[in-house]
Amino acid sequence: MVKLVALYRTPEDTAAFDEHYFSIHAPIVKRWPGLLKLEVSRITGAPIGEPKHHLMAEMYFQDETAMQNALRSPDGKAAARDVMEFAGSLVSMFFAEVKGDQ
Amino acid sequence: MVKLVALYRTPEDTAAFDEHYFSIHAPIVKRWPGLLKLEVSRITGAPIGEPKHHLMAEMYFQDETAMQNALRSPDGKAAARDVMEFAGSLVSMFFAEVKGDQ
Repeated sequence: MVKLVALYRTPEDTAAFDEHYFSIHAPIVKRWPGLLKLEVSRITGAPIGEPKHHLMAEMYFQDETAMQNALRSPDGKAAARDVMEFAGSLVSMFFAEVKGDQ
Repeated sequence: MVKLVALYRTPEDTAAFDEHYFSIHAPIVKRWPGLLKLEVSRITGAPIGEPKHHLMAEMYFQDETAMQNALRSPDGKAAARDVMEFAGSLVSMFFAEVKGDQ
């Protein structure tokens, strides 16, 4: 299993961010073909210091091919456009291979 | 459900890092009381540019109390000491509330 991880730094207006994320962005992501799971986590603190991030979204797929197909799909492109508009300066993304319960 | 997330920046020697993480660090974490799941992911790339990170570990618990109890347990303290020794300059950690499949 693989996943796309999106980490959002804390925005100036977290309420406006959440409103856009949950009512506009997440519904587009949930339409991605081959998406097995969307796990969204709200960052609440850190063991040391203040966390820099507000939200983490993890999009799970069976394999690399399924993930790339989702990103190239119309809803993949729509989500990319949307994220750049509402959180382009806040988001960092990476691909990961889930090694499971080690 | 809540989780502790540890993000490790790419070390100079990834093979030595993996050897320590999987053979020494993860076994300590797996002894934490109340740990529901340890999900380890190897970071493989990024949609834009090169990823800065090598590994992400996510430790899941029922709630905040269970997570804090685990961190204060002998194996919680042993894991903290170990991570500071082998990856103190590489790791960043945060707590998160899992909002589930949105």
